[in-house]
Amino acid sequence: MAEELDNIPFELTEDLINQVERLIELKQDKALQKLLNDFHHADIADILDELDLAEAVYIIKLLDSETTADILMELDEDNREKVLRNLSSKEIADEIGELDTDDAADIISELPEERKREVISHIEDEDHKAEIQELLAYDEDTAGGLMAKELVKVYETWTVAGCLRRIRGQAKEVTRVHSIYVVDKQNRLVGRLSLKDLIVAKSEQKIADIYISSVDSVNVHDDAEDVAKVMQKYDLEAIPVVDNNQKLLGRITIDDIVDVMKEEAEKDYQLAAGITADVEADDSIWELTKARLPWLLIGMFGGIGAATIITNFQSVLNDYKILLSFVPLIQATAGNVGVQSSAIIVQGLANDSIDGNLLKRLLKEFLLGLVNGLAIAFIVLLISHFAFHTTYLESLTICVALISVIIMAALIGTFIPIFLDKRGIDAAVATGPFITTSNDIFGILLYFLIAKAILGF
Amino acid sequence: MAEELDNIPFELTEDLINQVERLIELKQDKALQKLLNDFHHADIADILDELDLAEAVYIIKLLDSETTADILMELDEDNREKVLRNLSSKEIADEIGELDTDDAADIISELPEERKREVISHIEDEDHKAEIQELLAYDEDTAGGLMAKELVKVYETWTVAGCLRRIRGQAKEVTRVHSIYVVDKQNRLVGRLSLKDLIVAKSEQKIADIYISSVDSVNVHDDAEDVAKVMQKYDLEAIPVVDNNQKLLGRITIDDIVDVMKEEAEKDYQLAAGITADVEADDSIWELTKARLPWLLIGMFGGIGAATIITNFQSVLNDYKILLSFVPLIQATAGNVGVQSSAIIVQGLANDSIDGNLLKRLLKEFLLGLVNGLAIAFIVLLISHFAFHTTYLESLTICVALISVIIMAALIGTFIPIFLDKRGIDAAVATGPFITTSNDIFGILLYFLIAKAILGF
Repeated sequence: MAEELDNIPFELTEDLINQVERLIELKQDKALQKLLNDFHHADIADILDELDLAEAVYIIKLLDSETTADILMELDEDNREKVLRNLSSKEIADEIGELDTDDAADIISELPEERKREVISHIEDEDHKAEIQELLAYDEDTAGGLMAKELVKVYETWTVAGCLRRIRGQAKEVTRVHSIYVVDKQNRLVGRLSLKDLIVAKSEQKIADIYISSVDSVNVHDDAEDVAKVMQKYDLEAIPVVDNNQKLLGRITIDDIVDVMKEEAEKDYQLAAGITADVEADDSIWELTKARLPWLLIGMFGGIGAATIITNFQSVLNDYKILLSFVPLIQATAGNVGVQSSAIIVQGLANDSIDGNLLKRLLKEFLLGLVNGLAIAFIVLLISHFAFHTTYLESLTICVALISVIIMAALIGTFIPIFLDKRGIDAAVATGPFITTSNDIFGILLYFLIAKAILGF
Repeated sequence: MAEELDNIPFELTEDLINQVERLIELKQDKALQKLLNDFHHADIADILDELDLAEAVYIIKLLDSETTADILMELDEDNREKVLRNLSSKEIADEIGELDTDDAADIISELPEERKREVISHIEDEDHKAEIQELLAYDEDTAGGLMAKELVKVYETWTVAGCLRRIRGQAKEVTRVHSIYVVDKQNRLVGRLSLKDLIVAKSEQKIADIYISSVDSVNVHDDAEDVAKVMQKYDLEAIPVVDNNQKLLGRITIDDIVDVMKEEAEKDYQLAAGITADVEADDSIWELTKARLPWLLIGMFGGIGAATIITNFQSVLNDYKILLSFVPLIQATAGNVGVQSSAIIVQGLANDSIDGNLLKRLLKEFLLGLVNGLAIAFIVLLISHFAFHTTYLESLTICVALISVIIMAALIGTFIPIFLDKRGIDAAVATGPFITTSNDIFGILLYFLIAKAILGF
């Protein structure tokens, strides 16, 4: 497919949006087509994301389905859902007909159950329909959910010349040829070949003589994240997908993996910031509240817990009220250390670079906490003594508490993600507000217990 | 290059490491070579990362430089540095000779200045040397710093048959052929062609008749992150790099972009967690302290600020001491809301999806804060009244403060990243401890000011 890209980078300006809106209003279809045909489909999708629903639907119905199918793929998920609701099942099926099987399956899987069946029944190409239905059966977070059926395969018994002739037909269907997969008579993957290898080889050679017999592949049920790791580690641009009998089912290309990586990184980032669900700044207040409020409630219950602890100690604290002033310091330090420790562990787990035994790692965090704790305690000692005129024992209390709390927070921040990971739970949830809140409570409790021990109230 | 990959996923086991160590100790070179030759270079790098330096150097010197060059590229940066220090400049130059120009330049750029010159002087292939020197001149965070000189280019005047014949030579040098770039006599990029297009075309056709005349390209001085965005948006697997006169200088492939994206995501994640510099769980305590302590100090000064505020109000708070118990709640809520708001903005800025005017966005955050604030204040009202027996005015104080603090934190968390971004500063620094600390102080101050206004002390 020829992609017409301009060298001048596309810029989404207010002017451009206004121009498109004016042309739609005046129903200047010809001018609109002429204007939009100059843009890449990803850029048109950017424009559509800025328009009203009615305007977006107008453009989707105006342009030819080859372009609009690609545009639909690039739209924001929310906007795509709305646009699709305004198209008939037949219209959606026409769009689907233009897409590769993986993209087609992705769009259909977003539709409500009944709509799904209607759209599938309208797909005219029977092979395409069967392939899409096959893909719909796989979990979207597995290799099967990512793969496309489009690929170029040859039999090991073919010659180079015969191969080139035959793959000309197959290649027309495939947007980009990464590797040519070599299969045996039972359609089992036995090796691979690049187009380059084929061109460099002599035309009378047998495929069996030139193919590369070992080829990395993933099982159709493998986890999408694991596929991403394999492709990234071995710098692969496409990987074939096989079933349990090594039969070739499809292939996954790097652009889909880039999307998986990006989503994964954004999810982890949001979890660390205390946001569940995939939200964007432009989502509605209701959606943002749903994603944010639960974490705030966790923090709130932590705050109530802290209030209970303080209230209990306050009555016996008569002579040492200055200690209350340092609660925020203890709390903030515990929170910060915990988040740091957990973030490093979560990232290490994601990269499979956490090894060795747990005890050794906890010992290291202990030492790290001790070093950081001593440094901070020393500064606080000077400030509290000279600026807050704390007594010797009060200063001792604050400093011992700081060091203890930092060590405790580092250990909790290290232990919880590793513990969750061993139980098969995504360690990324153990960052942000979750770890901060637990460290807040334990930190404040530890502070008052140390105060009680040292000051003896 | 034929990559021999096993279908059985590689697993880095204790047993395997022990086996390798034993073979090194016994100097069983043949057995060692036989064992390691079965593995992909990325897997051998994983093994080396687990060995002692002497053992790693032993293996690097044992295996042929074609393999070891690739292994070096995959090693942890710290380990690579150590291994390189144990190789002579001549040995490094031999490794470099096996690498593509982009990887070669990356490795050389990590060496100390004098070592750099020595290694370059030892590179035998004069063309390779000149190309590497050209690449070393570019900033590593630009397109020039990412690109490789290896690419397949053809002149528009050639025929398909002549083209196929000639690119056979060029293609041998290039690991993977993504696109064939079409240039005019002045070496200016005029279009592109895929190997597939070439194979599907008739052999007597002119390149000028079949090439795709628009081709996306980036300028050699473009920012690496912008290149990543373009390639991701348009699903490109390679992009040509040109100078200001449109002359073709090199190409960037998606695997390098995947690395850029990954580093970027990890950096943002670490900044949000209050960790500067790129550290891993396995780094030394000293390195981890350097990355973590500065942020803890920011938090510490915040805590001292909070202590000052509380100490000042404590003396006039006689009858309302219960309010002190709720300081952690106010603080934790302000911190959590601020991190949520800033994370959404930082992510939106990274995706270029933040548009519209600042006032509208702040108004939205205001409403969002109001909704979340009312929800949390209502629950806290019930709990404080029934569990903490606060008076009517005390409850009012706590709830009004909670709502105000949430709104304030949401506004600060939204405003600061946008402000920094407009000033050209990476907004990602405005997350984590930075935003938490400022919200802590402002939150506690606001709390006591509201208390003063309502309770009139």
